[in-house]
Amino acid sequence: MKKILLLGAGRSSYSLIKYLLAHASKENWHITVGDFSIVSAQEKVANHPQGTAIQFDINNTELADNEISKTDIVISLLPPNLHFKAAQACLKFGKHLLTASYVSPEIKKMEAEVKEKGLLFLNEIGLDPGIDHLSAMQIIDKLKEKNAKIAAFRSYTGGLVAPEYDNNPWNYKFTWNPRNVVLAGRGTAKYIINGQYKYVPYHRLFKHLEEITLDGYGAFEGYPNRDSLAYREVYGIANIPTLLRGTLRKKDYCISWDAFVQLGMTDDSYVLENSENMTYREFTNSFLQYSQVYLVEEKLAHLLGINTDHPLIKKIAWLGLLGHEKIGLPRATPAAILQQLLERKWKLEEGDKDMIVMQHIFDYESVTGKKCTLTSSLVVKGENEQDTAMAKTVGLPLGIAAKLLLQGKIDLTGVLMPVHPQIYTPILQELEAYGIRFIEVEREVSQ
Amino acid sequence: MKKILLLGAGRSSYSLIKYLLAHASKENWHITVGDFSIVSAQEKVANHPQGTAIQFDINNTELADNEISKTDIVISLLPPNLHFKAAQACLKFGKHLLTASYVSPEIKKMEAEVKEKGLLFLNEIGLDPGIDHLSAMQIIDKLKEKNAKIAAFRSYTGGLVAPEYDNNPWNYKFTWNPRNVVLAGRGTAKYIINGQYKYVPYHRLFKHLEEITLDGYGAFEGYPNRDSLAYREVYGIANIPTLLRGTLRKKDYCISWDAFVQLGMTDDSYVLENSENMTYREFTNSFLQYSQVYLVEEKLAHLLGINTDHPLIKKIAWLGLLGHEKIGLPRATPAAILQQLLERKWKLEEGDKDMIVMQHIFDYESVTGKKCTLTSSLVVKGENEQDTAMAKTVGLPLGIAAKLLLQGKIDLTGVLMPVHPQIYTPILQELEAYGIRFIEVEREVSQ
Repeated sequence: MKKILLLGAGRSSYSLIKYLLAHASKENWHITVGDFSIVSAQEKVANHPQGTAIQFDINNTELADNEISKTDIVISLLPPNLHFKAAQACLKFGKHLLTASYVSPEIKKMEAEVKEKGLLFLNEIGLDPGIDHLSAMQIIDKLKEKNAKIAAFRSYTGGLVAPEYDNNPWNYKFTWNPRNVVLAGRGTAKYIINGQYKYVPYHRLFKHLEEITLDGYGAFEGYPNRDSLAYREVYGIANIPTLLRGTLRKKDYCISWDAFVQLGMTDDSYVLENSENMTYREFTNSFLQYSQVYLVEEKLAHLLGINTDHPLIKKIAWLGLLGHEKIGLPRATPAAILQQLLERKWKLEEGDKDMIVMQHIFDYESVTGKKCTLTSSLVVKGENEQDTAMAKTVGLPLGIAAKLLLQGKIDLTGVLMPVHPQIYTPILQELEAYGIRFIEVEREVSQ
Repeated sequence: MKKILLLGAGRSSYSLIKYLLAHASKENWHITVGDFSIVSAQEKVANHPQGTAIQFDINNTELADNEISKTDIVISLLPPNLHFKAAQACLKFGKHLLTASYVSPEIKKMEAEVKEKGLLFLNEIGLDPGIDHLSAMQIIDKLKEKNAKIAAFRSYTGGLVAPEYDNNPWNYKFTWNPRNVVLAGRGTAKYIINGQYKYVPYHRLFKHLEEITLDGYGAFEGYPNRDSLAYREVYGIANIPTLLRGTLRKKDYCISWDAFVQLGMTDDSYVLENSENMTYREFTNSFLQYSQVYLVEEKLAHLLGINTDHPLIKKIAWLGLLGHEKIGLPRATPAAILQQLLERKWKLEEGDKDMIVMQHIFDYESVTGKKCTLTSSLVVKGENEQDTAMAKTVGLPLGIAAKLLLQGKIDLTGVLMPVHPQIYTPILQELEAYGIRFIEVEREVSQ
């Protein structure tokens, strides 16, 4: 019997645990699910005969070492900054590790030792990063095989509410970690376009948009996501003139979100004075110039360069940021205050379904000199509040990768991303059975 | 004979070393000047019979321990992030420490031990922080003595080029550490106005200005500097409704500097691709949207919301940021590239003199109910390229504090700022002999 240890039983673990338990009997697996909250773990395992729920704390070294030493493979859904602790224990006891997070510098540093011990630490095998890599690499390798010259690659992903349930003025609800949504994009986005490097500072990120349309799903917009440049090497397209990875939102979301960025409400680096007793209106006012004359609404409109009757002011008012309700959060950062408010207002309601949208756009020149555009699009909708599109698209690639690894079908070692055919081919194939299927449209560009 | 160890013999040490050596004979002192570059130290000591120049490296623990163990008092002009290493050694060997830098959290943590050992770690005893504290506290204590109610305190300081030598389109030259000027203001500025807390994110800081005039010196503008709120407690004015500390520049400087902030050129957190072979024009273009149609000048004007014939575009062009010269700096951050360029263009030329401007503005209500404004202003001009206003105003408070401490005239212990009468009274008095004198103007406000 093979043993799988899954660390973290939060919202995004549902589909993964369901997949693992569904395969446990046939594959002869035992799955141990560890979470800080044993109740979370128990809910997910639901007394499955080949599952065990345990209380787990990665900072409890004795406990962590004991559990990791007993397993064959570790899947970490811990907060990204804690993966490296799981990785250290995996290294110590010679265990494979899978995560859906970006390769951290700490884990990258373990590369030589991981290889030496014949282990695989496979990262970025969720949705974004994850399915984006799988599907992009499949296309890149196919184009390379045909000796096509890739001129441009743009890739956008968004986790959204499904259109049928999109009923608030922001056209957005939280379908994954709200904190990550509030802090998204901090730092500088980097990409390359027609050979020119572009750097977009955070305070201009949500104005730096590309329009994306998806037949049948309407108008979206994408903003550049983190460091696209690093993926030139990862994807084996070092000399591509245009490469941009971005995040997708419904049209008009970004320019509205930008109001929070301009105000300074997404800052998580300092604590506001007296945040507990402040009202949301006072919170908003604390980012605006002092005035004995102008209302908060007027100062806000002035800052944003709009009139007070602009829809954006109404959207902000709808959230309660101009109202007199008390915040009630002691020693809170601006980002924490904003997050608490948005979690109430942007909650997925009972019955709501989420939706994942991904689109890759390749410009290439064929070996015969034809200029073509290949668009590969994915839309996944959630089944229900637990088996969400997000949980499926993050969890299933992890689950399938774990299966392939335990079946001995992956013989790669090292700290890797899923850009190898022996990983992406079977995973993309199996994902189709779960309705996760890309639609490709290829057309010649008129000269 | 008392021994003084001065760490760091850079540009701002000149007036301090001159002061210490001038007093060495009468006070029976020996002054050891240590710098990473022994040549710098030797130049400053100039074979003075009571001075010694040594090569010094705070990271060489053996050397540092040896020198610090032998002295009576340490004055650290090291880079601010290295003071705590000097502080650790001072604690180990029971030595007093003086610095002109903000109290760091590391040094603040040593408070109990410093007190226990009967030592004084006196920080923020330069110009800003330094003379601002001395002079502000003298006024605050005076107003408190008169039972006046202080309603507002604003304080601005600027290190500028003297008007006679102010001959470039930016009305600014470097009179101190260029890196600090380029990175100034990163983070969030915090202050309070009429009881309302205000938080200004970096990307709006240089638009968040107050106009200041100084009779005979023209128009200035000030932007809020770091965390003013913390000084309510330091100054013993916890309930003051308005407190703002700021940085002073010539009129129009800030809105021009804001162009660099908007572009993203003051970021020091990442390295640009191929920075060595890039031209300054390409550097500027890397922060602007890609276009096959518009010129860099047009895109820049668009970003800044001005026309291409606006004086700001000319100012930016004057620096060379739109030109085709190669940068030549490998693996450089945006801030490093900007700094290198500005250091050439904003250099103090031979014969140029600098100028320090400081202004405190107090609003208070007297015990009889009269509402008054008290303005206390300081202007100091440099003597020459070495005895600059900056070197004098940073160095002399340190030198005088060292003298008072060695004469036994300061009996305070702990990690302190110079807000105590036994420190500020004699230092302000002696500074007057060096032409560092505040002019107070008090007037009743008409109701």
